[in-house]
Amino acid sequence: MIPPDSERRPRVAIIGGGFAGLSAAKALAGKPFDVTVIDRHNYHLFQPLLYQVATAGLSPADIASPIRAILRYQDNVRVVLADVSGIDTRSKEILAEGRRIPYDTLIVATGAQHAYFGHEQWAAFAPGLKTIDDATYLRRRILLAFERAEAETDPVERQRLLNFVVIGGGPTGVEMAGAIAELANRALKADFRSIDSRDARIVLVEAADRLLTPFDPSLSQAAKESLERLGVEVRLGASVTDCNSDGVWIGKDFIPSRTIMWAAGVMASPAGAWLKAQTDRAGRVKVNADLTVPGHPDIFVIGDTADVAGPDGRPLPGVAPVAKQEGIYVARLLISRQKGREIDPFRYRDLGSLATIGRSSAVVQFGKLKLHGFFAWVLWCVAHIYFLIGFRNRLIVALNWAWNYVTFQRGSRLITGVTGARIDDVKKSDGPPLLSKAG
Amino acid sequence: MIPPDSERRPRVAIIGGGFAGLSAAKALAGKPFDVTVIDRHNYHLFQPLLYQVATAGLSPADIASPIRAILRYQDNVRVVLADVSGIDTRSKEILAEGRRIPYDTLIVATGAQHAYFGHEQWAAFAPGLKTIDDATYLRRRILLAFERAEAETDPVERQRLLNFVVIGGGPTGVEMAGAIAELANRALKADFRSIDSRDARIVLVEAADRLLTPFDPSLSQAAKESLERLGVEVRLGASVTDCNSDGVWIGKDFIPSRTIMWAAGVMASPAGAWLKAQTDRAGRVKVNADLTVPGHPDIFVIGDTADVAGPDGRPLPGVAPVAKQEGIYVARLLISRQKGREIDPFRYRDLGSLATIGRSSAVVQFGKLKLHGFFAWVLWCVAHIYFLIGFRNRLIVALNWAWNYVTFQRGSRLITGVTGARIDDVKKSDGPPLLSKAG
Repeated sequence: MIPPDSERRPRVAIIGGGFAGLSAAKALAGKPFDVTVIDRHNYHLFQPLLYQVATAGLSPADIASPIRAILRYQDNVRVVLADVSGIDTRSKEILAEGRRIPYDTLIVATGAQHAYFGHEQWAAFAPGLKTIDDATYLRRRILLAFERAEAETDPVERQRLLNFVVIGGGPTGVEMAGAIAELANRALKADFRSIDSRDARIVLVEAADRLLTPFDPSLSQAAKESLERLGVEVRLGASVTDCNSDGVWIGKDFIPSRTIMWAAGVMASPAGAWLKAQTDRAGRVKVNADLTVPGHPDIFVIGDTADVAGPDGRPLPGVAPVAKQEGIYVARLLISRQKGREIDPFRYRDLGSLATIGRSSAVVQFGKLKLHGFFAWVLWCVAHIYFLIGFRNRLIVALNWAWNYVTFQRGSRLITGVTGARIDDVKKSDGPPLLSKAG
Repeated sequence: MIPPDSERRPRVAIIGGGFAGLSAAKALAGKPFDVTVIDRHNYHLFQPLLYQVATAGLSPADIASPIRAILRYQDNVRVVLADVSGIDTRSKEILAEGRRIPYDTLIVATGAQHAYFGHEQWAAFAPGLKTIDDATYLRRRILLAFERAEAETDPVERQRLLNFVVIGGGPTGVEMAGAIAELANRALKADFRSIDSRDARIVLVEAADRLLTPFDPSLSQAAKESLERLGVEVRLGASVTDCNSDGVWIGKDFIPSRTIMWAAGVMASPAGAWLKAQTDRAGRVKVNADLTVPGHPDIFVIGDTADVAGPDGRPLPGVAPVAKQEGIYVARLLISRQKGREIDPFRYRDLGSLATIGRSSAVVQFGKLKLHGFFAWVLWCVAHIYFLIGFRNRLIVALNWAWNYVTFQRGSRLITGVTGARIDDVKKSDGPPLLSKAG
């Protein structure tokens, strides 16, 4: 790190306004640094609730806040809306949309995106869920599947439209499967005349022998039983071997479906390539104990883009608490270094893990404490409201949940970006084409 | 109208789930008709508040409700999501996405869309506001203009990005101009570092000699003064002669701008062409006193698609109360006819007109009663909450407004469908391309 000269304050550039980048920026409030936060979106997204946008429970704006607004009163921060395309570590500049943004210290917090690990052709048939546009696209596909089933006269095709396959039994997959089941069983059940939305078949496919592998096996079992009570078919030890517009192959077993969702894996952002740094299998940059990149004491990588070993030696999971603690750690380290002091290596303080299955059902693990059922679900709700940014979003989300709880309805059931039920020629703005009916 | 045979109940098909179509469907609840409501969107949209979505105050789902959900418990209604492409009046069938939907009685309530009246090439530069996708597209353009101004180093281009031109001084134009002014002056003012959002110049262009021509001239004057207090430049008697990616021409006067909005005229849906019926200059179908199409006693046209004379002989305006009363009238007429009774011709009961300029400012006219200022604004708020459909939407909109009133913030400031600030190659899904920076 370059010591500040007498003329100006050191420039800290942060790429990414997610949990990691934002917590670093906030922890530098009022400190003698010129901070620049660069993101390709104008908002910070509360990703843990993104599945509720995809399943029509919440609006995008309920779980997103403008980064500028969050950092509005922090005078030493400048926010830049731009797509970063690379980093020039020699000249110490970030390349973004034809501009070069100089830095003294760089914090890379560019997150992860869903990945198909050698099966990129599946992206067109099994879209993933990482951005708001992903969520409104999935919402459109799920709602249109019911609409098209209502209009369909062929019973085989009608059932294929009512089959939903979620690939991946981590928190996102479990939450999506539970939410689609509740949509079909409760929110939509009085709405159609030719179909019974409860005929929907929801299949959750997981390659491991249990769901929610980061949790204790007893909670995995509780989650599986909860999902089964909602009518979800849980297929464990089941590896997807192929995927097309007609359905999903698991070995020789074929599940016909027009609506497939990918929640089976993520890949870190291309920051490793930008930095020419060593990465793990998931593209995460291997960092030192102080979260700097080996050979680059002025560059930190944090959040889902970093491969940081936990106490058990395994990489820490890509979850919000890890990202936040890493962001705060880097800010503290920079402040200390400026005063000529060093601080201890980063250590993650485990705040526990939570995942919800649906109405009144969640699993919670905090050290030795393991909970499932209604009380776990209340804890899940409280924690998610608490960690949302902004009073307005907290209030609106709490109200939506209360309304959803009382009425069983979903408040955001809009099919946008398309008219009618013909989706053959509709494309996602920056994603795979929608399925054609002919397959 | 065909009398019901002993076998089945008469089939009433309603094209359009807006105010007109929906009120007709609801007024037929529990009556011996088989009703089909066909819309190309899965939601009913509360259009009077669409400008608040375009200016980041509300989320789309706050002002839209699924048509299926609204009519869920009305057993004699079936909802069809489909794009109608024509009507076969001989076989009495609606053509929609390859399907033929039969009817005994047809109610056409397909609304209107913005129109450029011979200047269709302006659509690419001056988008209008009629759908949710229009609104999120305008929101993206308005917010990106500020983002690009923040990044711009050329002062001439920077100011061009901060110039907003609204064409048309009716309610939509007045509301848009006021809302953009409040966004620039209040919500965004602490958010940027290189620009002062208050340097935004908002120009409202109207060809007539006053704003809000359907209102009393004293209220037009009050609205103009309110807008001017917000910093909006009101240009009366000003006809747009050309429009391109660099700005707007008013005769020899040029207003440079990268963000132009069209609120200067609407054209009825193509129902007139489907029916080969006589239409007025705005494409509205001329109907009989009972709202049937001349020569087609089994076809009614209502709402913005109908040209219905008011008490003063001029056509009734395209507003929600007219549409609703027409829908209810047609339902009553059908119920009476079935009992062998005729009813009086349609007569509009004027419920007054309202338009808002911005925070604490609106104009209200009800017969001889004319109001402007704070109390008019409270009336405007109460009326709009009251007429929203659904308890959840009422509560969420009221809370958003309360939050907006107290904090001056906007809750829905998301730029979606695009990443970064390069918008050169971004297209609206079914609309004009975004401006390229080079113009």
